[in-house]
Amino acid sequence: MTDMAAMLNAYPGTLPKIDEDALVICVQDCLNCAQACTSCADACAADPAAAQLARCAGAVLNCADLATAAARVLSRPTPYDGEVTAATLHALTEACRAAYDECRRHALENEACRICGEACRRCAQACRHLLRSLERA
Amino acid sequence: MTDMAAMLNAYPGTLPKIDEDALVICVQDCLNCAQACTSCADACAADPAAAQLARCAGAVLNCADLATAAARVLSRPTPYDGEVTAATLHALTEACRAAYDECRRHALENEACRICGEACRRCAQACRHLLRSLERA
Amino acid sequence: MTDMAAMLNAYPGTLPKIDEDALVICVQDCLNCAQACTSCADACAADPAAAQLARCAGAVLNCADLATAAARVLSRPTPYDGEVTAATLHALTEACRAAYDECRRHALENEACRICGEACRRCAQACRHLLRSLERA
Amino acid sequence: MTDMAAMLNAYPGTLPKIDEDALVICVQDCLNCAQACTSCADACAADPAAAQLARCAGAVLNCADLATAAARVLSRPTPYDGEVTAATLHALTEACRAAYDECRRHALENEACRICGEACRRCAQACRHLLRSLERA
Repeated sequence: MTDMAAMLNAYPGTLPKIDEDALVICVQDCLNCAQACTSCADACAADPAAAQLARCAGAVLNCADLATAAARVLSRPTPYDGEVTAATLHALTEACRAAYDECRRHALENEACRICGEACRRCAQACRHLLRSLERA
Repeated sequence: MTDMAAMLNAYPGTLPKIDEDALVICVQDCLNCAQACTSCADACAADPAAAQLARCAGAVLNCADLATAAARVLSRPTPYDGEVTAATLHALTEACRAAYDECRRHALENEACRICGEACRRCAQACRHLLRSLERA
Repeated sequence: MTDMAAMLNAYPGTLPKIDEDALVICVQDCLNCAQACTSCADACAADPAAAQLARCAGAVLNCADLATAAARVLSRPTPYDGEVTAATLHALTEACRAAYDECRRHALENEACRICGEACRRCAQACRHLLRSLERA
Repeated sequence: MTDMAAMLNAYPGTLPKIDEDALVICVQDCLNCAQACTSCADACAADPAAAQLARCAGAVLNCADLATAAARVLSRPTPYDGEVTAATLHALTEACRAAYDECRRHALENEACRICGEACRRCAQACRHLLRSLERA
């Protein structure tokens, strides 16, 4: 899907002890979640019921910003610091949870919220899976 | 690959007259390019020859920032403005060109630069393709 | 206001031939514009008339993303490339123009739009001033 | 310094119970920290001793990305969620700590690292101050 796995293989230094498959999947789910959340906030604004979707639009924008930051932090083996990675994944997990809860409330009437909520749920799961592999390392 | 096509389908308003396949491909190439450039800058820093890779590290970071911004602008049909979209695609095309030129100079010794240069080239191509479809609209 | 001027002074390489005062002012106006646009999109969503503010919310989010990218590109002397800088400033100028036009339409009823429109106008002016100094160099 | 305080005053909804002065200062320190970190990574790459500054360059780029995301999350009262705000501030505090530790190791020889380390220390302090005010609310 992305070149992330190839970029990891090409890294000239020593990679941190981290589950590489979980890392690649998490970066890809972060990128997809950031994109879906950006689209969803725009769809919420364009909805005739925009005034009822204000919290949802804001929650997915927060999630897009933290997912973008997380994808970048996870793409840098050189300054790897377990505490920074864990706290970044935790912040994104909270943002995904808040965005998912808002999206789910509107999913029946709003297809954009349904798809985006699913992207947030999947991203949170990938973050939690990677977090557990960090804790075992 | 991403949920971008599904998000476009779910958009509650009227989509701008734009080649939707070219749009989806461009967003995906932007996300991949941003990720590859972020990894490449980190790989350049970790290279024993880092001092020779300074311009390359900076060029790919510029490209990552403009690709991230472009993916977001392209994900918002609601405020669509042809001049903003065209200028954003043009800025990213220039950043891809500069990053590709630097990466290509190091591609033989540095596998990360080879992969990243290819991601930049593909992203620039997707931007140019989308730009041409805007001009015909 | 920010440490940008001190960071330029501390740069270990040779700075590109560029008006340094215009550069520092432009980076600060980009950061302020990005912040004001982010707040403004949130205020638009929270407005009872949110459905009428959809284009405005999207235009300021585009402007926030391009202003953030521009502040970063302008903060990197090492990979300086006049074409990349000019195209980045041009894209942000277009986004500021689109955001200003939307904000101005709502400025009488909506104080957030009034302040944000002013921030966009000032940022566009700083970009144009820096662009002209590049062309003279 | 920025329009953040004016934007808060103009907010059309009900602001969350949060220390507004601490919020405004924190957003401004985030923006300055993100800018200083972006400049510092570029200065590290341009240093003849770039190969020794690899971890520092990466740590400040992580910090720039998390500070940018935090400034945006803190600029949105509408979707306010105490857990998301606290986790975002915690992630940035960790990134500031890691960046400060790296910058401090190079501060004697490298003026960019000295200034940037100070910006990170101040930003971490503003985050901790805001975090404590959230816990009291």
